[in-house]
Amino acid sequence: MSTDGFFEHVTIIGPGLIGGSLGLALKAQGLADRIVGVGHRQVSLDKALAIGAIDAGTLDATEGVRDADLVVLCTSVGRIQRQLRELVPCMKDGVLITDVGSIKGAICSAAAEALAGHGGPGMRFVGSHPLAGSEQRGIDAATDGLYDGATCILAPSANTDPDGSGLVALRAMWQAVGCVVKEFSPDLHDRLLAEVSHLPHVVAAALVNTVSEDALPLGATGFQDTTRIASGDPGLWVDICMANREGLQASLKQMQSELAEFQAAIESGNAETLARLFAEAKSVRDGRFGLEG
Amino acid sequence: MSTDGFFEHVTIIGPGLIGGSLGLALKAQGLADRIVGVGHRQVSLDKALAIGAIDAGTLDATEGVRDADLVVLCTSVGRIQRQLRELVPCMKDGVLITDVGSIKGAICSAAAEALAGHGGPGMRFVGSHPLAGSEQRGIDAATDGLYDGATCILAPSANTDPDGSGLVALRAMWQAVGCVVKEFSPDLHDRLLAEVSHLPHVVAAALVNTVSEDALPLGATGFQDTTRIASGDPGLWVDICMANREGLQASLKQMQSELAEFQAAIESGNAETLARLFAEAKSVRDGRFGLEG
Repeated sequence: MSTDGFFEHVTIIGPGLIGGSLGLALKAQGLADRIVGVGHRQVSLDKALAIGAIDAGTLDATEGVRDADLVVLCTSVGRIQRQLRELVPCMKDGVLITDVGSIKGAICSAAAEALAGHGGPGMRFVGSHPLAGSEQRGIDAATDGLYDGATCILAPSANTDPDGSGLVALRAMWQAVGCVVKEFSPDLHDRLLAEVSHLPHVVAAALVNTVSEDALPLGATGFQDTTRIASGDPGLWVDICMANREGLQASLKQMQSELAEFQAAIESGNAETLARLFAEAKSVRDGRFGLEG
Repeated sequence: MSTDGFFEHVTIIGPGLIGGSLGLALKAQGLADRIVGVGHRQVSLDKALAIGAIDAGTLDATEGVRDADLVVLCTSVGRIQRQLRELVPCMKDGVLITDVGSIKGAICSAAAEALAGHGGPGMRFVGSHPLAGSEQRGIDAATDGLYDGATCILAPSANTDPDGSGLVALRAMWQAVGCVVKEFSPDLHDRLLAEVSHLPHVVAAALVNTVSEDALPLGATGFQDTTRIASGDPGLWVDICMANREGLQASLKQMQSELAEFQAAIESGNAETLARLFAEAKSVRDGRFGLEG
């Protein structure tokens, strides 16, 4: 049982920015003897090989996971759920599985089903969510320093890691590559991430959709910053929103109610309330990101 | 009558980032013989003098505006309205007055009242709104290139510029310092700016106020970008929202309805509609700012 973050054989499914950077960091820290990358394009695998993020690449996922001690799923939220169902039956008993998706509840459920249906008795799953590298994508942007100081959330569940050994091993690994590790249940993770990540994406997109054709050219840096994440991949965000419907609905309801407070203050000309609402937001945000953030 | 953007004597009230940069640009282009700065702190005036943004500074606004051919009010939206009432009686007949505030309707009304009550027959007012320099503030950030390629909106009104000569002179001046000039009525300006500037500020603040204390530390770059303008000066934004209540209410209503569309799609699990809403936003935003913006 690994408690120092070391795994003999690691398989990374989808060695792009997140997965490739993990490969580089594991290598840099001497945390893996052999890293296999599973991809769906040979050219990306060749790049991952060339920069040393993996030791071998394969387009055949079944083949790629067979001998792994640790499997890390670094694809999209929708794909991770499918791959768990498809690949768990091909993994060896004793394997530890994790993923890096932005949703933990639905993925953990998919893992529980896969393990219960087709897994060996010693197989474990613990979801991970490193909060890193959201701006760029692809193996070209991978770097061994991506996780330096980044927060990584682990979302353990007794269903998929009964003795907690998977949690111990993954905590050691993420810490060894530089992460500050936090632990939340899958459901709490999804509720909290709905607030700071999934809701902002919906809000940014709704804000863009609000603006008329005549007004759009007048949008300057403020509008540009506020809507930046509306340029994200629609498919990815549909997957995430659909996988976190419950958490997102609660956040959306709260957002509507906060907006209504501003609306009421503006409608009634209540400058005092409006000043309090703006000051509250400024104080919270400055506290989180500093005055220049 | 100036049609080449030249004014013998310009007075800039509040020579900070916007006003100071205008002073520097007018000097660089040879568009003014003499520039007087009016401030409320001697140290800021001394800085404006030192970098050559003004030729003389005074803390006495009455004194500062007396001989001006062009007066440019570069203070806050609330202050501009008060200064129009206080200072118009001290200006010479024939003066052209403008401002750089983010609201044009309420300011233009204040100007019309001031001119009707205390102005000479040849006094004119045309509001300006250069869309530049929203990130930093103060004379230290002033630069003669601030207006290069920036959009400047002019909001003429027959009430305050009956023969249109003020509009002609200001259009020439803003173009001479590098601006792309657009013209809208004060009311249309306020409706359009509500959508791309005032609404985003309210939305960013409401988003911050939605987030719980536990979720806040998990906010990463996406959340940081989306809420950046929530760190703006609450006092300034209360002034702007109060001065543009009508435009802002219409935008807020539209935003609530766009959010409700996302909400309904998420609630009913309608991935197709959700994909359409996200794709629409991405396409509009990419069209405005490009893929990397």
